[in-house]
Amino acid sequence: MSSQPRIAIDAMGGDEGVRVMMAGVALARRRHEGLRFILFGDEARLKAALDRHPNLRAASEIVHADSVVDGSEKPSVAIRKKNSSMAKAIAAVKSGDAGAAVSSGNTGALMAMAKLALRTMPGIDRPALAAMLPTLGDNDVVMLDLGANPECDARNLVQFSVMGAAYARIALDLEQPRVRLLNIGTEDLKGTDEIRDAAAILRATVLPLRFDGFTEGDKIASGECDVIVCDGFSGNVALKTAEGTARFVTDVLRRAFTSSIRSKLGFLISKPAMHLLKHHLDPNNHNGAVFLGLNGVVVKSHGSANDTGVANAVHVAARLLEEDITRRIAADMANVPAFARPAPMLEPAAK
Amino acid sequence: MSSQPRIAIDAMGGDEGVRVMMAGVALARRRHEGLRFILFGDEARLKAALDRHPNLRAASEIVHADSVVDGSEKPSVAIRKKNSSMAKAIAAVKSGDAGAAVSSGNTGALMAMAKLALRTMPGIDRPALAAMLPTLGDNDVVMLDLGANPECDARNLVQFSVMGAAYARIALDLEQPRVRLLNIGTEDLKGTDEIRDAAAILRATVLPLRFDGFTEGDKIASGECDVIVCDGFSGNVALKTAEGTARFVTDVLRRAFTSSIRSKLGFLISKPAMHLLKHHLDPNNHNGAVFLGLNGVVVKSHGSANDTGVANAVHVAARLLEEDITRRIAADMANVPAFARPAPMLEPAAK
Repeated sequence: MSSQPRIAIDAMGGDEGVRVMMAGVALARRRHEGLRFILFGDEARLKAALDRHPNLRAASEIVHADSVVDGSEKPSVAIRKKNSSMAKAIAAVKSGDAGAAVSSGNTGALMAMAKLALRTMPGIDRPALAAMLPTLGDNDVVMLDLGANPECDARNLVQFSVMGAAYARIALDLEQPRVRLLNIGTEDLKGTDEIRDAAAILRATVLPLRFDGFTEGDKIASGECDVIVCDGFSGNVALKTAEGTARFVTDVLRRAFTSSIRSKLGFLISKPAMHLLKHHLDPNNHNGAVFLGLNGVVVKSHGSANDTGVANAVHVAARLLEEDITRRIAADMANVPAFARPAPMLEPAAK
Repeated sequence: MSSQPRIAIDAMGGDEGVRVMMAGVALARRRHEGLRFILFGDEARLKAALDRHPNLRAASEIVHADSVVDGSEKPSVAIRKKNSSMAKAIAAVKSGDAGAAVSSGNTGALMAMAKLALRTMPGIDRPALAAMLPTLGDNDVVMLDLGANPECDARNLVQFSVMGAAYARIALDLEQPRVRLLNIGTEDLKGTDEIRDAAAILRATVLPLRFDGFTEGDKIASGECDVIVCDGFSGNVALKTAEGTARFVTDVLRRAFTSSIRSKLGFLISKPAMHLLKHHLDPNNHNGAVFLGLNGVVVKSHGSANDTGVANAVHVAARLLEEDITRRIAADMANVPAFARPAPMLEPAAK
């Protein structure tokens, strides 16, 4: 083990293959000079891919892995593949050989393996899946949970708020992120008991975040907050609905632009504008979903990410490792006194 | 009471005032020649607005209402205003003077008043709020519940499926609408117990709909189904996230198009394309959310709807009345034998 913690890379997971993974990791290394890696996967293919990236090769150890977790494999089946590149990358975090793992593989399998091997950190009941989404404001917004926990109680939502704020402080470089709970209205009485109880705890607790109450689906991209907290069901619905709507709008536009010669001409002239839109919506620019709340950092890169996308995911892992997010979350959780008692019995100390 | 059922109009509810409401109702009347109306609101203002619409005036009775439900009024306060134009319009449906009511007022107040006055129909536990959303397919998609019930059990979801399909058969003119439950994955094991139990009941029941299993947020606008069923929390989140994302994309586009002279020129040339996009996203073309499951038809028009939007909402009410949706739902519900027993104990008769 080196003094500088290394990042474990599951090199086999992406749809785009080992070459794109290696190109992405090499890109990330240029941004983080001292960073070192353990690359898990088919040794021969890894060595061939590294021929193009001598600097990355010099900073990496290759560890052969016999098998690969398939994209369509059920998590319950995948977790038995102890010799897969994914399992070995997570095992490296567990043993301390690496400080973080990055994979472009099957999300469900990665989540199940990471939870089983790394366990949730002290003070956290359940890990959550967090990601950055683009906004019209000054910075992206962190949203969690995006699907790890379909049902959540007030304690879960408070813990997600603390974890999401810690992530935003590091990844968005904000001192006191503005946090809101996703709801179906902004009035105090709106929503479920779980959401109202979580709001009461967050109002009564001093944390390195600013709790601003509730937000709604139409404000996710508005830039009014830095962290949006919700259960994994509504988070997943919101994330996918946003993807689907962006596709719908651009599709209608594409059809419209090809419907007449005049529009076609206009489209050609305004290509830079369309390019900017594409840049805003390109998931590669927001790549790297993070499992928060585990004893170790695990980052999921999108299966179809290109080299820039993979580099962004590795960058996220490197930043969370450098800033020791796990320690930060543990320190913040110590300030949540409500958790000694069951959440619904809590009487807020201050309004 | 006439032989042809009339439509009760809350003429005071919209942000755009009595004139727009009357212009919209007059437009709708041109599409439904025999339709007659009872208009509730300030008598003097209604008479003045009707001066421009002699045909509508001839088909309408004006009933004076002293007060108006405010847009920001709490439902618990609003329901006490028995003399408001909204309360009187709903009372007309209850007494049988009208067969349906249309209002552009406060959604929460309208929902509370309608539920209290009209009650849920036999066989239905809770009413739901349904609306049409645009898709890339051949027709719009009906989605429910959009916020009336933040938490739902399997029985509610099955009832919403039956109600949504009845609505789609009328409004989309489909014999056997394709129905899916909104979930966070399409595999059988995904989601909550409530969703899986509802799926088991729908698979085992013969109904005038085709149950196609689960769908996800990114498929709402894809056109793969005609009815999407979910609890009111995730439905509200999805609807608002779609609105917010469409605004985000068009805002990025607008900024991009005004960032350079070249883009500006391109924009001017391709204006017809942008016009088509605007048409697709214009809520006035999909106006008219419906409360399904009550003893009577109640349609909510968007507060900021223009005359076309109001006309669409009135058209929806007229169609549901002509096709007697309440009777249809009651007939379909008689085919759901599972409801004699508690839903979770059900063993599907056929797979």
